Amino acid sequence: MTKPLSGIKQIAQRAGVHASTVSRVLNPRTRALVSDEVAARILKIAESLRYTRNPLAVGLKTRRSFTVGVVVPDLTNPAVPPLVRAVQHTLEKEGYVTVLADADSDSNPETERAILERLRARQVDGLILATALLKSEIVTACQEWNLPFVLMNRTVSDPSVTSVVNNDVQGVHLVVDHLVQLGHRKVAYVGGPLNTSTGRARRQGFIAALKAYRLKAREELVVDCSSFTVQAGLATTRELLRTSKHSFTAIVSANDLLALGIYDALAEAGLACPDDISVTGYNDMPFADRFNPPVTTLRIDYGQMGVQASQLLLRKMRDPDAQISSVRLEPLLVVRGSTAHYGKQ
Amino acid sequence: MTKPLSGIKQIAQRAGVHASTVSRVLNPRTRALVSDEVAARILKIAESLRYTRNPLAVGLKTRRSFTVGVVVPDLTNPAVPPLVRAVQHTLEKEGYVTVLADADSDSNPETERAILERLRARQVDGLILATALLKSEIVTACQEWNLPFVLMNRTVSDPSVTSVVNNDVQGVHLVVDHLVQLGHRKVAYVGGPLNTSTGRARRQGFIAALKAYRLKAREELVVDCSSFTVQAGLATTRELLRTSKHSFTAIVSANDLLALGIYDALAEAGLACPDDISVTGYNDMPFADRFNPPVTTLRIDYGQMGVQASQLLLRKMRDPDAQISSVRLEPLLVVRGSTAHYGKQ
Repeated sequence: MTKPLSGIKQIAQRAGVHASTVSRVLNPRTRALVSDEVAARILKIAESLRYTRNPLAVGLKTRRSFTVGVVVPDLTNPAVPPLVRAVQHTLEKEGYVTVLADADSDSNPETERAILERLRARQVDGLILATALLKSEIVTACQEWNLPFVLMNRTVSDPSVTSVVNNDVQGVHLVVDHLVQLGHRKVAYVGGPLNTSTGRARRQGFIAALKAYRLKAREELVVDCSSFTVQAGLATTRELLRTSKHSFTAIVSANDLLALGIYDALAEAGLACPDDISVTGYNDMPFADRFNPPVTTLRIDYGQMGVQASQLLLRKMRDPDAQISSVRLEPLLVVRGSTAHYGKQ
Repeated sequence: MTKPLSGIKQIAQRAGVHASTVSRVLNPRTRALVSDEVAARILKIAESLRYTRNPLAVGLKTRRSFTVGVVVPDLTNPAVPPLVRAVQHTLEKEGYVTVLADADSDSNPETERAILERLRARQVDGLILATALLKSEIVTACQEWNLPFVLMNRTVSDPSVTSVVNNDVQGVHLVVDHLVQLGHRKVAYVGGPLNTSTGRARRQGFIAALKAYRLKAREELVVDCSSFTVQAGLATTRELLRTSKHSFTAIVSANDLLALGIYDALAEAGLACPDDISVTGYNDMPFADRFNPPVTTLRIDYGQMGVQASQLLLRKMRDPDAQISSVRLEPLLVVRGSTAHYGKQ
């Protein structure tokens, strides 16, 4: 009785090449080492034999799972799916599958740790984290485990960590410029959680921008939300209106979901946006142009952010010791109906 | 030299139990076989030893990967993330990781096949598919591979396939009732792709509902879109308005993204919603209440749909031969600002 040939050996025999050549071709990461003509022939034979690589077995042998974990703070924030889609498409071309984990609105401090343990147990080759807190246990854990990772959208205080972020300070400066040009002088700020780099930097940007115009950032008009959600924006603005009613003509907020919460609080208080109070968001999330009123906001190119983060991670996974610089994307001011001239008020 | 103890043996020794007891406790599916007191003790020791199960090795041994593939048609449709979140949370409690695949707006007929091959290669234990076409190659493939699967939101013609869907015919009947009560008699329909069960059933529901009121579904007023997207809704409605201008007072559409496309086409044509034309959507996707005007639509409980689909899949994976009935959820009419009385027009 002859022993049946394994998939790779069978393909090699039919193609008249060595099994190692077949292996190289079947792995997207080493395919370029083989001539195009030979690669095409081998792939055709593999297809005719309905050959499928077994990544579990390959993973045990090469200690690679060809899986990347992607952890996002809140999948129901419309800004997140375009980011995930860009990552998935970029990594897929290199033969990687992405495992998505949703930390559910940063709701639970235990969640991040639990997610990491789960992804680690599944032996992911690398991680893209959009959930980092400034003092992140996750980052320390990845460093201990020697697990390649890239931070996306949010970063940590440690400058040696590779990240792809937005220039948050500059973004808030752009909206303050816009509001000042519209004649606003008394501007409030509804910010995000201060344990995130985005929450911290956007707040700093706000205070710096007011200072540049020699305007005072009155302490009672600068408030922070516990999460980047509509609910948090509503609750915080309700309180802001209660304590400082009519003492400002515009509100800068740290993301578009917070801006929607501000809309709700203004409506509750019988105030119109932008006729009574101008409001700005951050992210230019999908549908931001369709709300009532359409949101003046800062556009982050999330497609680009996802592609860049994936490419940096691919480089890190290939060469864990490479020094890889972080990337900072510049935001774009998008003016819509939620901001109006002070004279109109 | 003594041989180092493996993780499980080390835990067993410290806990004073047999290694098989430790295995049972570390597997969420068999934990209930061990007393709570013993389980708690073992988990505590496992934690103190920083023990992590290796699902890849476990997978090779038990032929289980504890991974479920979830395939969605379009992650950027706000209706989809709540569905994914519900699935992920339900399966996670049972020790499963979900691998999400986004078919990107059904854009490419090759995509679905490619996704399936990729998930199969990763040896998923089961699949939840929200992408099924009526004549789906995927379903045949899963049946051939003996891979447990459940269809979610969309189903196929074969009634033996387990699915969790919405009562689409009834849903459209509810919006037609609502429009007729408002005085509308000339109603157009902008539908979804007819190769999906949702596209087909909602269209059938529309024609049946008009018939029930002895109204005629005029052929030129019933049009179908090639995808469930804003772009398709815009293009199709543009054409509808060009060929049948002013011959209808309301448009029923097959999903909320299509309704947004209809809004855009009406605005282009200088028509106001609902003053000139009433519009209805389907799904009650997040933010449907915040568009201008807020969308009158049919609410599908996506959280419930995700939980049910996951539970059916868990049963199938435990007992592949079990006869499992499909589930049909009832939609709820949500009346908002996009529909108005005919007399007001």
